[in-house]
Amino acid sequence: MTQDERAIRDLIDRWHEYAQQGNVDATLRLMTDDVVFTVVGSPPFGKARFESAAREMQGAKLHTEHELLELTVSGDSAWSRVRLRVTVTKPDGQTLTREGHTLSIYVRGADGGWLLARDANLLGPPQSR
Amino acid sequence: MTQDERAIRDLIDRWHEYAQQGNVDATLRLMTDDVVFTVVGSPPFGKARFESAAREMQGAKLHTEHELLELTVSGDSAWSRVRLRVTVTKPDGQTLTREGHTLSIYVRGADGGWLLARDANLLGPPQSR
Repeated sequence: MTQDERAIRDLIDRWHEYAQQGNVDATLRLMTDDVVFTVVGSPPFGKARFESAAREMQGAKLHTEHELLELTVSGDSAWSRVRLRVTVTKPDGQTLTREGHTLSIYVRGADGGWLLARDANLLGPPQSR
Repeated sequence: MTQDERAIRDLIDRWHEYAQQGNVDATLRLMTDDVVFTVVGSPPFGKARFESAAREMQGAKLHTEHELLELTVSGDSAWSRVRLRVTVTKPDGQTLTREGHTLSIYVRGADGGWLLARDANLLGPPQSR
């Protein structure tokens, strides 16, 4: 594993760690200022909307399971494909599960560190197996 | 616009042209052999499954409208974000419309030409506006 691959794997692991901790400030430091999140059913959105949605979620408990299927580094950019399962437990105890895949693009920042730059979240209701 | 940007814009335009013509062979030449398509509700798939699905569609008429929102070239890779609306008219006249966004990754091939390498298709039923 190259140093770049290790750094991006670490970024992905920290992302999920912070998400489960509800640590929004730390999560925001893992993405570029011009990050774009693409989802199904609503327009793409950026860092400000990510932050407000994450802060609204702070009463809920997030549990994520992720498996890195691919990580390819190409110069100063990279992409990953991750299989992901997210369970949200709301304050009233209701749970919501979404599963599927993500395609993410990372860029090397000015300081040499890697940041999430683009993300496509293709999660949907759990499939019958 | 750089030469690389022009080449990738041309690739995207040809993709939609060939799709509407039902020209599967030509479409297959626009992607790498290890291309991965990521969609909602089923596992990611590669070139062989793309081909069989496209050949099954040959009785249907495809109409696509696409708008390139972003194209970023980084060394030997690149990514695009496209707003897309697809209408499929089946042989019995029934139509199905899907709209949304894509996030795609391109790589520079050995001959210097660009190919689609990864694609996330986030299309869903049309949203009320």
